[in-house]
Amino acid sequence: MRIYNFEETLPQEKLDELYMKEAFSLAEQAFREDEVPIGAVIVAQNKIIGKGYNLTERLNDVTAHAEMQAFTAAANFLGGKYLKDCTLYVTVEPCVMCAGASYWTQVSRIVYGAVDEKRGYTVVAPNILHPKTQIIGGVLEEECGALMKAFFRSKR
Amino acid sequence: MRIYNFEETLPQEKLDELYMKEAFSLAEQAFREDEVPIGAVIVAQNKIIGKGYNLTERLNDVTAHAEMQAFTAAANFLGGKYLKDCTLYVTVEPCVMCAGASYWTQVSRIVYGAVDEKRGYTVVAPNILHPKTQIIGGVLEEECGALMKAFFRSKR
Repeated sequence: MRIYNFEETLPQEKLDELYMKEAFSLAEQAFREDEVPIGAVIVAQNKIIGKGYNLTERLNDVTAHAEMQAFTAAANFLGGKYLKDCTLYVTVEPCVMCAGASYWTQVSRIVYGAVDEKRGYTVVAPNILHPKTQIIGGVLEEECGALMKAFFRSKR
Repeated sequence: MRIYNFEETLPQEKLDELYMKEAFSLAEQAFREDEVPIGAVIVAQNKIIGKGYNLTERLNDVTAHAEMQAFTAAANFLGGKYLKDCTLYVTVEPCVMCAGASYWTQVSRIVYGAVDEKRGYTVVAPNILHPKTQIIGGVLEEECGALMKAFFRSKR
Protein backbone atom coordinates (compact mmCIF):
# COMPACT_ATOMS: atom_id res chain seq x y z
CA MET A 1 0.00 0.00 0.00
CA ARG A 2 1.59 3.28 -1.07
CA ILE A 3 1.44 5.97 1.59
CA TYR A 4 0.95 9.58 0.60
CA ASN A 5 1.60 12.62 2.67
CA PHE A 6 0.41 15.42 0.48
CA GLU A 7 0.77 18.80 2.11
CA GLU A 8 -2.20 19.30 4.34
CA THR A 9 -2.18 22.92 3.25
CA LEU A 10 -3.23 21.93 -0.27
CA PRO A 11 -6.80 22.99 -0.96
CA GLN A 12 -9.33 20.15 -0.88
CA GLU A 13 -10.02 20.59 -4.60
CA LYS A 14 -6.38 19.92 -5.41
CA LEU A 15 -6.23 16.93 -3.07
CA ASP A 16 -9.34 15.52 -4.70
CA GLU A 17 -7.65 15.72 -8.09
CA LEU A 18 -4.50 14.05 -6.82
CA TYR A 19 -6.39 11.14 -5.33
CA MET A 20 -8.64 10.85 -8.35
CA LYS A 21 -5.50 10.47 -10.43
CA GLU A 22 -4.64 7.44 -8.32
CA ALA A 23 -8.09 6.00 -8.91
CA PHE A 24 -7.69 6.76 -12.61
CA SER A 25 -4.43 4.84 -12.85
CA LEU A 26 -6.26 1.84 -11.38
CA ALA A 27 -8.96 2.31 -14.04
CA GLU A 28 -6.21 2.25 -16.66
CA GLN A 29 -4.96 -0.99 -15.16
CA ALA A 30 -8.48 -2.44 -15.49
CA PHE A 31 -8.53 -1.28 -19.13
CA ARG A 32 -5.27 -3.09 -19.82
CA GLU A 33 -6.79 -6.25 -18.35
CA ASP A 34 -9.87 -5.89 -20.55
CA GLU A 35 -12.12 -5.06 -17.60
CA VAL A 36 -14.63 -2.21 -17.51
CA PRO A 37 -12.16 0.59 -16.67
CA ILE A 38 -13.21 1.84 -13.26
CA GLY A 39 -10.82 2.39 -10.37
CA ALA A 40 -11.28 3.41 -6.75
CA VAL A 41 -9.19 4.43 -3.77
CA ILE A 42 -10.17 5.16 -0.20
CA VAL A 43 -8.32 7.86 1.69
CA ALA A 44 -8.12 8.53 5.41
CA GLN A 45 -5.99 11.29 6.88
CA ASN A 46 -4.21 11.81 3.57
CA LYS A 47 -3.35 8.13 3.23
CA ILE A 48 -4.63 5.68 0.69
CA ILE A 49 -5.92 2.83 2.86
CA GLY A 50 -7.77 0.80 0.25
CA LYS A 51 -7.92 0.44 -3.49
CA GLY A 52 -9.59 -1.60 -6.17
CA TYR A 53 -10.46 -1.84 -9.79
CA ASN A 54 -13.18 -3.63 -11.60
CA LEU A 55 -12.54 -7.38 -11.75
CA THR A 56 -15.92 -8.73 -12.81
CA GLU A 57 -14.47 -10.64 -15.76
CA ARG A 58 -11.43 -12.10 -14.09
CA LEU A 59 -13.36 -13.17 -11.00
CA ASN A 60 -16.51 -14.11 -12.91
CA ASP A 61 -18.35 -12.09 -10.33
CA VAL A 62 -20.67 -9.19 -11.01
CA THR A 63 -20.18 -7.93 -7.46
CA ALA A 64 -16.43 -7.37 -7.97
CA HIS A 65 -16.76 -3.64 -8.62
CA ALA A 66 -13.85 -1.31 -7.86
CA GLU A 67 -15.66 0.30 -4.92
CA MET A 68 -16.60 -3.00 -3.27
CA GLN A 69 -13.01 -4.12 -3.26
CA ALA A 70 -11.80 -0.77 -2.01
CA PHE A 71 -14.33 -0.84 0.85
CA THR A 72 -13.26 -4.32 1.88
CA ALA A 73 -9.57 -3.42 1.64
CA ALA A 74 -9.98 -0.22 3.67
CA ALA A 75 -11.98 -1.93 6.42
CA ASN A 76 -9.34 -4.63 6.49
CA PHE A 77 -6.59 -2.00 6.81
CA LEU A 78 -8.41 -0.19 9.61
CA GLY A 79 -9.47 -3.34 11.43
CA GLY A 80 -12.96 -1.87 11.77
CA LYS A 81 -16.07 -2.05 9.65
CA TYR A 82 -16.87 1.63 9.35
CA LEU A 83 -15.20 4.23 7.15
CA LYS A 84 -16.57 7.26 8.94
CA ASP A 85 -13.64 9.60 8.34
CA CYS A 86 -12.75 8.37 4.89
CA THR A 87 -13.26 9.52 1.33
CA LEU A 88 -14.01 7.16 -1.54
CA TYR A 89 -12.59 8.31 -4.88
CA VAL A 90 -14.03 6.46 -7.84
CA THR A 91 -13.63 7.25 -11.52
CA VAL A 92 -17.29 6.67 -12.38
CA GLU A 93 -20.47 7.39 -10.44
CA PRO A 94 -21.30 4.38 -8.22
CA CYS A 95 -24.13 1.99 -9.13
CA VAL A 96 -26.95 1.13 -6.73
CA MET A 97 -25.05 -1.82 -5.27
CA CYS A 98 -21.96 0.25 -4.50
CA ALA A 99 -23.97 3.22 -3.23
CA GLY A 100 -25.88 0.75 -1.04
CA ALA A 101 -22.59 -0.64 0.24
CA SER A 102 -21.37 2.89 0.97
CA TYR A 103 -24.43 3.35 3.17
CA TRP A 104 -23.29 0.51 5.40
CA THR A 105 -19.72 1.82 5.57
CA GLN A 106 -20.92 5.30 6.56
CA VAL A 107 -18.09 6.72 4.43
CA SER A 108 -17.82 10.51 4.92
CA ARG A 109 -17.36 11.58 1.32
CA ILE A 110 -17.71 10.10 -2.11
CA VAL A 111 -15.88 11.86 -4.94
CA TYR A 112 -16.52 10.53 -8.42
CA GLY A 113 -15.33 11.37 -11.91
CA ALA A 114 -17.73 10.74 -14.78
CA VAL A 115 -21.48 10.32 -14.45
CA ASP A 116 -23.03 7.00 -15.42
CA GLU A 117 -26.17 8.00 -17.24
CA LYS A 118 -27.48 4.45 -17.41
CA ARG A 119 -26.68 2.73 -14.14
CA GLY A 120 -25.45 5.50 -11.85
CA TYR A 121 -27.32 5.41 -8.56
CA THR A 122 -28.63 8.96 -9.03
CA VAL A 123 -30.55 7.86 -12.12
CA VAL A 124 -32.15 4.89 -10.40
CA ALA A 125 -32.42 5.72 -6.71
CA PRO A 126 -30.96 9.11 -5.76
CA ASN A 127 -31.72 8.94 -2.03
CA ILE A 128 -29.87 5.84 -0.94
CA LEU A 129 -26.64 7.28 0.46
CA HIS A 130 -26.07 7.52 4.19
CA PRO A 131 -27.30 10.92 5.42
CA LYS A 132 -23.77 11.66 6.66
CA THR A 133 -22.16 10.97 3.29
CA GLN A 134 -21.23 13.98 1.14
CA ILE A 135 -21.16 13.41 -2.60
CA ILE A 136 -19.12 15.33 -5.18
CA GLY A 137 -19.03 14.54 -8.88
CA GLY A 138 -17.08 15.71 -11.88
CA VAL A 139 -13.47 15.46 -10.67
CA LEU A 140 -11.32 14.56 -13.72
CA GLU A 141 -14.63 13.90 -15.40
CA GLU A 142 -13.30 14.07 -18.95
CA GLU A 143 -10.44 11.60 -18.55
CA CYS A 144 -12.58 9.17 -16.55
CA GLY A 145 -15.40 9.33 -19.08
CA ALA A 146 -13.11 9.11 -22.09
CA LEU A 147 -11.56 5.89 -20.78
CA MET A 148 -15.00 4.31 -20.46
CA LYS A 149 -15.99 5.42 -23.95
CA ALA A 150 -12.75 4.05 -25.40
CA PHE A 151 -13.41 0.72 -23.70
CA PHE A 152 -16.96 0.31 -24.95
CA ARG A 153 -15.99 1.52 -28.43
CA SER A 154 -13.38 -1.26 -28.56
CA LYS A 155 -16.11 -3.80 -27.72
CA ARG A 156 -18.39 -2.91 -30.61
CA MET B 1 -22.10 -28.29 -1.43
CA ARG B 2 -25.14 -30.45 -0.66
CA ILE B 3 -27.12 -31.43 -3.72
CA TYR B 4 -30.87 -31.73 -3.54
CA ASN B 5 -33.15 -33.49 -5.95
CA PHE B 6 -36.56 -32.68 -4.65
CA GLU B 7 -39.33 -34.15 -6.73
CA GLU B 8 -39.91 -31.86 -9.64
CA THR B 9 -43.59 -32.57 -9.24
CA LEU B 10 -43.70 -30.72 -5.94
CA PRO B 11 -45.61 -27.46 -6.27
CA GLN B 12 -43.41 -24.34 -6.40
CA GLU B 13 -44.84 -23.16 -3.09
CA LYS B 14 -43.63 -26.31 -1.37
CA LEU B 15 -40.22 -26.12 -3.03
CA ASP B 16 -39.89 -22.51 -1.93
CA GLU B 17 -40.51 -23.56 1.67
CA LEU B 18 -37.98 -26.37 1.46
CA TYR B 19 -35.25 -24.12 0.12
CA MET B 20 -36.13 -21.37 2.55
CA LYS B 21 -35.59 -23.91 5.34
CA GLU B 22 -32.05 -24.33 4.05
CA ALA B 23 -31.54 -20.57 4.10
CA PHE B 24 -33.03 -20.53 7.60
CA SER B 25 -30.58 -23.09 8.89
CA LEU B 26 -27.76 -20.86 7.63
CA ALA B 27 -29.37 -17.94 9.47
CA GLU B 28 -29.35 -20.07 12.62
CA GLN B 29 -25.66 -20.72 12.07
CA ALA B 30 -25.10 -16.95 11.83
CA PHE B 31 -27.02 -16.55 15.09
CA ARG B 32 -24.78 -19.09 16.83
CA GLU B 33 -21.76 -17.11 15.63
CA ASP B 34 -23.24 -13.88 16.99
CA GLU B 35 -23.81 -12.46 13.51
CA VAL B 36 -27.03 -10.80 12.35
CA PRO B 37 -29.00 -14.00 11.59
CA ILE B 38 -29.63 -13.90 7.86
CA GLY B 39 -29.00 -16.83 5.54
CA ALA B 40 -29.24 -17.30 1.78
CA VAL B 41 -29.11 -20.07 -0.78
CA ILE B 42 -29.19 -19.95 -4.56
CA VAL B 43 -30.95 -22.71 -6.44
CA ALA B 44 -30.70 -23.73 -10.09
CA GLN B 45 -32.55 -26.73 -11.49
CA ASN B 46 -33.41 -27.97 -8.03
CA LYS B 47 -29.83 -27.81 -6.84
CA ILE B 48 -28.32 -25.52 -4.25
CA ILE B 49 -25.39 -23.96 -6.10
CA GLY B 50 -24.43 -21.23 -3.65
CA LYS B 51 -24.99 -20.33 -0.04
CA GLY B 52 -23.99 -17.77 2.51
CA TYR B 53 -24.77 -16.24 5.83
CA ASN B 54 -24.03 -12.88 7.26
CA LEU B 55 -20.36 -12.53 8.24
CA THR B 56 -20.01 -8.79 8.71
CA GLU B 57 -18.56 -9.15 12.22
CA ARG B 58 -16.15 -11.99 11.57
CA LEU B 59 -14.84 -10.43 8.37
CA ASN B 60 -15.03 -6.86 9.64
CA ASP B 61 -16.75 -6.07 6.38
CA VAL B 62 -20.14 -4.45 6.00
CA THR B 63 -20.44 -5.87 2.48
CA ALA B 64 -20.33 -9.50 3.72
CA HIS B 65 -24.08 -10.00 3.61
CA ALA B 66 -25.52 -13.48 3.11
CA GLU B 67 -26.76 -12.68 -0.41
CA MET B 68 -23.44 -11.25 -1.60
CA GLN B 69 -21.64 -14.39 -0.58
CA ALA B 70 -24.29 -16.62 -2.12
CA PHE B 71 -24.09 -14.68 -5.42
CA THR B 72 -20.33 -15.02 -5.53
CA ALA B 73 -20.47 -18.72 -4.63
CA ALA B 74 -23.14 -19.49 -7.24
CA ALA B 75 -21.30 -17.65 -10.02
CA ASN B 76 -18.17 -19.50 -9.01
CA PHE B 77 -20.01 -22.82 -9.16
CA LEU B 78 -21.49 -22.05 -12.57
CA GLY B 79 -18.29 -20.57 -13.99
CA GLY B 80 -20.34 -17.68 -15.37
CA LYS B 81 -21.29 -14.29 -14.01
CA TYR B 82 -25.04 -14.40 -14.57
CA LEU B 83 -27.67 -16.24 -12.55
CA LYS B 84 -30.42 -16.01 -15.13
CA ASP B 85 -32.19 -19.27 -14.30
CA CYS B 86 -31.61 -19.20 -10.60
CA THR B 87 -33.61 -18.37 -7.50
CA LEU B 88 -32.18 -16.56 -4.49
CA TYR B 89 -33.75 -17.60 -1.19
CA VAL B 90 -32.95 -15.26 1.65
CA THR B 91 -34.46 -15.18 5.12
CA VAL B 92 -34.86 -11.38 5.22
CA GLU B 93 -35.74 -8.88 2.51
CA PRO B 94 -32.55 -7.74 0.75
CA CYS B 95 -31.06 -4.30 1.42
CA VAL B 96 -30.29 -1.81 -1.36
CA MET B 97 -26.76 -3.15 -1.81
CA CYS B 98 -27.92 -6.74 -2.21
CA ALA B 99 -30.86 -5.79 -4.41
CA GLY B 100 -28.42 -3.75 -6.51
CA ALA B 101 -26.11 -6.77 -6.74
CA SER B 102 -29.06 -8.93 -7.79
CA TYR B 103 -29.63 -6.54 -10.68
CA TRP B 104 -26.17 -7.30 -12.04
CA THR B 105 -26.65 -11.06 -11.61
CA GLN B 106 -30.00 -10.96 -13.48
CA VAL B 107 -31.26 -13.62 -11.06
CA SER B 108 -34.69 -14.91 -12.15
CA ARG B 109 -36.42 -14.98 -8.79
CA ILE B 110 -35.87 -13.67 -5.31
CA VAL B 111 -37.81 -15.34 -2.51
CA TYR B 112 -37.47 -13.79 0.92
CA GLY B 113 -38.82 -14.51 4.38
CA ALA B 114 -39.37 -11.56 6.69
CA VAL B 115 -39.65 -7.94 5.61
CA ASP B 116 -37.04 -5.46 6.78
CA GLU B 117 -39.04 -2.41 7.65
CA LYS B 118 -35.98 -0.24 8.17
CA ARG B 119 -33.44 -1.13 5.50
CA GLY B 120 -35.30 -3.40 3.10
CA TYR B 121 -34.84 -2.19 -0.48
CA THR B 122 -38.61 -1.75 -0.96
CA VAL B 123 -38.65 0.90 1.78
CA VAL B 124 -35.77 2.86 0.29
CA ALA B 125 -35.78 2.25 -3.46
CA PRO B 126 -38.49 -0.15 -4.63
CA ASN B 127 -37.64 -0.05 -8.34
CA ILE B 128 -34.06 -1.24 -8.42
CA LEU B 129 -34.45 -4.92 -9.28
CA HIS B 130 -33.71 -6.18 -12.77
CA PRO B 131 -36.91 -6.08 -14.84
CA LYS B 132 -36.62 -9.84 -15.36
CA THR B 133 -36.39 -10.60 -11.63
CA GLN B 134 -39.53 -11.85 -9.93
CA ILE B 135 -39.84 -11.11 -6.23
CA ILE B 136 -41.84 -13.06 -3.65
CA GLY B 137 -41.90 -12.30 0.07
CA GLY B 138 -43.33 -13.93 3.18
CA VAL B 139 -42.04 -17.51 2.87
CA LEU B 140 -41.44 -18.80 6.42
CA GLU B 141 -41.88 -15.17 7.42
CA GLU B 142 -42.57 -15.84 11.10
CA GLU B 143 -39.54 -18.03 11.80
CA CYS B 144 -37.22 -15.75 9.85
CA GLY B 145 -38.53 -12.64 11.58
CA ALA B 146 -38.53 -14.25 15.04
CA LEU B 147 -34.84 -15.16 14.71
CA MET B 148 -33.97 -11.54 13.89
CA LYS B 149 -36.04 -10.26 16.84
CA ALA B 150 -34.38 -12.75 19.19
CA PHE B 151 -30.97 -11.59 18.01
CA PHE B 152 -31.59 -7.89 18.49
CA ARG B 153 -33.32 -8.50 21.82
CA SER B 154 -30.17 -10.27 23.02
CA LYS B 155 -28.12 -7.18 22.06
CA ARG B 156 -30.08 -4.72 24.16
